[in-house]
Amino acid sequence: MHHIFGHTSPDTDAFASAFALAYWLNAQHINAIAYRLGEPNLETAFVIRHLFAHFTKDFADTPSQLLPYLDPNNPLATLQHGDKIGLTDHNESSQSIANVGDFDICFVIDHHKINLATPHTAYVRISPVGCTCTILYEMFAQKAIAIPPSLAMLMLSAIISDTLNLTSPTTTNDDRQVVENLLKIIGLSHDDKDKFAHAMFMAKSDISHLDARQILLMDYKEYDFCGHKWGIAGIETLNSEQVLARRDELSVMANTLKSDKNLDHLMIAIADIGTKTGYALAYDDAQNTIIAQAFNAKASDDGVFTLSGVVSRKRQIVPALENYYRHTPNNTT
Amino acid sequence: MHHIFGHTSPDTDAFASAFALAYWLNAQHINAIAYRLGEPNLETAFVIRHLFAHFTKDFADTPSQLLPYLDPNNPLATLQHGDKIGLTDHNESSQSIANVGDFDICFVIDHHKINLATPHTAYVRISPVGCTCTILYEMFAQKAIAIPPSLAMLMLSAIISDTLNLTSPTTTNDDRQVVENLLKIIGLSHDDKDKFAHAMFMAKSDISHLDARQILLMDYKEYDFCGHKWGIAGIETLNSEQVLARRDELSVMANTLKSDKNLDHLMIAIADIGTKTGYALAYDDAQNTIIAQAFNAKASDDGVFTLSGVVSRKRQIVPALENYYRHTPNNTT
Repeated sequence: MHHIFGHTSPDTDAFASAFALAYWLNAQHINAIAYRLGEPNLETAFVIRHLFAHFTKDFADTPSQLLPYLDPNNPLATLQHGDKIGLTDHNESSQSIANVGDFDICFVIDHHKINLATPHTAYVRISPVGCTCTILYEMFAQKAIAIPPSLAMLMLSAIISDTLNLTSPTTTNDDRQVVENLLKIIGLSHDDKDKFAHAMFMAKSDISHLDARQILLMDYKEYDFCGHKWGIAGIETLNSEQVLARRDELSVMANTLKSDKNLDHLMIAIADIGTKTGYALAYDDAQNTIIAQAFNAKASDDGVFTLSGVVSRKRQIVPALENYYRHTPNNTT
Repeated sequence: MHHIFGHTSPDTDAFASAFALAYWLNAQHINAIAYRLGEPNLETAFVIRHLFAHFTKDFADTPSQLLPYLDPNNPLATLQHGDKIGLTDHNESSQSIANVGDFDICFVIDHHKINLATPHTAYVRISPVGCTCTILYEMFAQKAIAIPPSLAMLMLSAIISDTLNLTSPTTTNDDRQVVENLLKIIGLSHDDKDKFAHAMFMAKSDISHLDARQILLMDYKEYDFCGHKWGIAGIETLNSEQVLARRDELSVMANTLKSDKNLDHLMIAIADIGTKTGYALAYDDAQNTIIAQAFNAKASDDGVFTLSGVVSRKRQIVPALENYYRHTPNNTT
């Protein structure tokens, strides 16, 4: 049995890519089961509800959250040492289950930078495309394995999510081509795809019932920049005003999380999907200095950096901070 | 420009995979040039002569050794810091150019275990198949890029070489299928393929004019087993008697290389391609004890271990030694 999962704090691609890889393996009579390492976020929950409503039969025996839970802090509750595993939408151990090296990594499908060592030759496909599901589509095509409409809808949702409906700077021609092919499989028009994307982003934007901690951990990743430990909490929204209105509450919680997680800095990076504008909260003097320099920006009097066009953590925010640390000798912050 | 190369001590797959990846990129209007990190071995030189004779026009402007030389110890003689590079048939820095991390790794196509970190998302395809060219064939198919017969012949030669004409335990169904497809492109019968394979192995076996150092470095790789540094000199031959007859000379040189390269051990692993029998020279007491235990074998009075069916360094020898070190606590040798 192969145990497949995406990263912790799972997003739509983490769900979809794990589900798709397990499907691809089972179609080749290689036993596989997919898991989630956490609860679906608002957008992913919307996608799952849509799938269950429109492809009811396909998901009749499926757990209510699409995938069964695997506790990333206690994987041995589900797995045994040496079990065969597959990682999707991540490859770095910091984003995976605890002690991932104790298991037999057989598959890695991802679209992030690589930092990986395996004792045996694994099947590894990593590509600088916008979404892991774009790579998985190519794997299905290569083996001539048919993608049922329900799975195509799930994979399409992941690509829409990761590429902000093909508008993010991470989008490649491969992503665009795969979207065309998936639309044909589903029988969905471009118009309906755009409406669905809007509904996904609306679902993600409705954070009124979430507390500050939940908002910051919704799409949270950690990075090491020249020995400086950063957390970057991403908040993609169609309603940036609603998020900015809660900046005091978010700033207080950011300081708490910073100390809980032993971070040097925690950046709150808001991306307005509608206007394609990025915002960062200016809540800490030392961090403000870095953000100002890294993005050549100035905080407003009410404590907000406006980062025009900056909507991708991977393609824009992380490289800017890497660049800052690389070119700022003797920085001590 | 992308600079593509296989591993040091290049074999036929290191040549063919670098050439093929550069071809695949150029066919997509991504500029690429392929290099060799060393001189072709006897088998590879035979393959190159065959290609130049039978596909003269295709290789009219090609360097006499198929690929231009890139000095692995002084890559800056050819490249500049930060240049875009592609690695084929290897991914570990110990088998690549010096300071490979100073360059921008954009492509990695390989069939070995992974030990790699890249600062950006590279295009990585690693698969547990018998030969890198099997993966490259799938990349050509995926992009619908036609493989000309001359390149097909080169890729076929690499698969024949790495899989000992589809008989090594490393051979997979993917390798077999790709060989079928390449034969069709070339217009070569199975009989002629087998004859060509025999001629390749004959070329590789004719080591009469090589000195002991050249023989040991012909197909040489280094490994770290729980902190113990091993070199394994592979010698694939149709004429194991000829190699075994030179065991004294080879043993003396092995001791010299061991000290030159600061190794704990250097195993001389002979694989008789015809009889599918492996041999290891018993020339050092401490090493003999390890080989005896790892392979459950006993050296003959004239100093040779016979390892029945052991012809693959990657699939058989390395795992046996890994297993030995993993299960032998407090070993000090």
